[in-house]
Amino acid sequence: MNKDIILTGDRTTGQLHLGHYVGSLRSRVQLQDEYKTYILLADVQALTTHYDQPGMIADSVHQVTLDYLAVGIDPNKATLFIQSMIPEIAELTVIFSMFITVNSLRHNPTIKNEARDRGYKDLYYGFLGYPVSQAADIAFCKATLVPAGEDQIPHIETARKLVRRFNELYAPVLPEPRILTGERLGGLDGLGKMSKSMGNAISLNALPDDVHAKLARAKTDPARIHRSDPGHPDICPVFAYHQLFRKEEAAEIHASCSNGTIGCKDCKKIAGTAINELLSPFRERRNYYEQRGYEVKEILVEGTRQAQRAARETMLEVREAMGIRYFD
Amino acid sequence: MNKDIILTGDRTTGQLHLGHYVGSLRSRVQLQDEYKTYILLADVQALTTHYDQPGMIADSVHQVTLDYLAVGIDPNKATLFIQSMIPEIAELTVIFSMFITVNSLRHNPTIKNEARDRGYKDLYYGFLGYPVSQAADIAFCKATLVPAGEDQIPHIETARKLVRRFNELYAPVLPEPRILTGERLGGLDGLGKMSKSMGNAISLNALPDDVHAKLARAKTDPARIHRSDPGHPDICPVFAYHQLFRKEEAAEIHASCSNGTIGCKDCKKIAGTAINELLSPFRERRNYYEQRGYEVKEILVEGTRQAQRAARETMLEVREAMGIRYFD
Repeated sequence: MNKDIILTGDRTTGQLHLGHYVGSLRSRVQLQDEYKTYILLADVQALTTHYDQPGMIADSVHQVTLDYLAVGIDPNKATLFIQSMIPEIAELTVIFSMFITVNSLRHNPTIKNEARDRGYKDLYYGFLGYPVSQAADIAFCKATLVPAGEDQIPHIETARKLVRRFNELYAPVLPEPRILTGERLGGLDGLGKMSKSMGNAISLNALPDDVHAKLARAKTDPARIHRSDPGHPDICPVFAYHQLFRKEEAAEIHASCSNGTIGCKDCKKIAGTAINELLSPFRERRNYYEQRGYEVKEILVEGTRQAQRAARETMLEVREAMGIRYFD
Repeated sequence: MNKDIILTGDRTTGQLHLGHYVGSLRSRVQLQDEYKTYILLADVQALTTHYDQPGMIADSVHQVTLDYLAVGIDPNKATLFIQSMIPEIAELTVIFSMFITVNSLRHNPTIKNEARDRGYKDLYYGFLGYPVSQAADIAFCKATLVPAGEDQIPHIETARKLVRRFNELYAPVLPEPRILTGERLGGLDGLGKMSKSMGNAISLNALPDDVHAKLARAKTDPARIHRSDPGHPDICPVFAYHQLFRKEEAAEIHASCSNGTIGCKDCKKIAGTAINELLSPFRERRNYYEQRGYEVKEILVEGTRQAQRAARETMLEVREAMGIRYFD
């Protein structure tokens, strides 16, 4: 087994969608065979934007766990755990917060973009500290590799900086993490990446008809008015799905679209079928686990216990390094 | 016993001095008979300004504990505990940080003043969040009364706001704390309050000769050049000590100073003797505990265990209220 340790996860603010799959879940399923993998159900970080929706978060922890199991995360390989049950993450967040400035957090481009997208004027303190808490997520289990989207690059840079600072100040306890970026999936509206809050996403648990219905409303090449007009697949969001989910036929679709021999409606049907083929085994596994709530809970209990053990070990080293290990 | 719960404490950045005694320790010794009292050795908050001095903090935890025991804090009445060993404080800090804005923290006058005094331009994130972490200190044990200096009023206001917000959002779990302000002691330089970092303090463990030597260098009424000049005791820092530590003779000293019949040297001797009378039983108790390191450690172990039990109970209610109590 590779000696790298992986930390990855998602905020539990709702169900996951195809964008999550392409960006990260797909590679997690592959990586879990090679690496010790921790997968975080980030219910505390969900609070950064959804603190005023109690109830939603716990439900979402359950839904996201089902999504993970559905796409093929194997609980015998990967450790699935709940963030709020690892107090050491909060402890490391507080420690890391001592050696990063407010301004350097304010300059984080991902924080800036998300604040703008959400219309935040006056940032919440916890929202601004997102990269600090993410550094703690990574550090508690000494993760070295973080599969994540490109927007996470600034956060991982902060994590590296904080870990280096800790090691310089106290003792070389924490490894510097690297990011492993996944692919970016565009939304159905052709306007940006697939995102639940933008309403341009296909949920991983969408039913076959839903998938087709969503695609039917998807934007395509706006220059193509009539079926026989030549299309521009390279700027069409639907063609991007062909490339990702039916690679072997993508060249043929590209040609038929470009010369106007296939209409958007048919093209969308093919894409929908391809997506449904991908989702079909996910639906089966999801269905299996949906009927076994107790088993799902046991997976979370066991994964969380494992993460707690790792956290305790790391935290002892952290205290030792800082000279504040008074007694155990 | 009064049903109020007290939370109080000090950052462990060195030994305590007479200013701490007058401002807070004196009343703690009285209050411990009437109230359930938690006394926090704030080693995590010490990091907000001293993160780059590992080693100092653990030593200071020991010294401050000796100071507490020396002034008469009774470990059978009050619960002495170490902040970094209560992970729930970090957890509550992270939760509270979700519903307070960066700007409202920036406008906190005590944060502003301390940043100015320390010459901070670009605030550290943890330093800015001091009031948030103090709210967590208070909330973890459901404290209702916080004996502290006047400069803590803005922090307690923040704590009240955060607790109210929590209770509104989730469920009425946390009580709103009130502050109980103590007296303010001026420093030996007559320029501001007694403060270790200003070098104008008398340590609680100062030896008798040190006390006299420190007073000998203390500023007095600057208008009084000759022994026979009439003095202005109301603006003299040394006279303030008379009022606090030898109240019964203060009127007489006031008269003798005003009419020039007592010189500053003699007046300082009387003040020094009064202070030494106060400190004498402190020295004895300190000496007792200095020779019993194991007993001191046991006091901290036992107090910390007690605080941990209170923290666990509160945190279960917090999780329950937020709907994130998945399993115990």
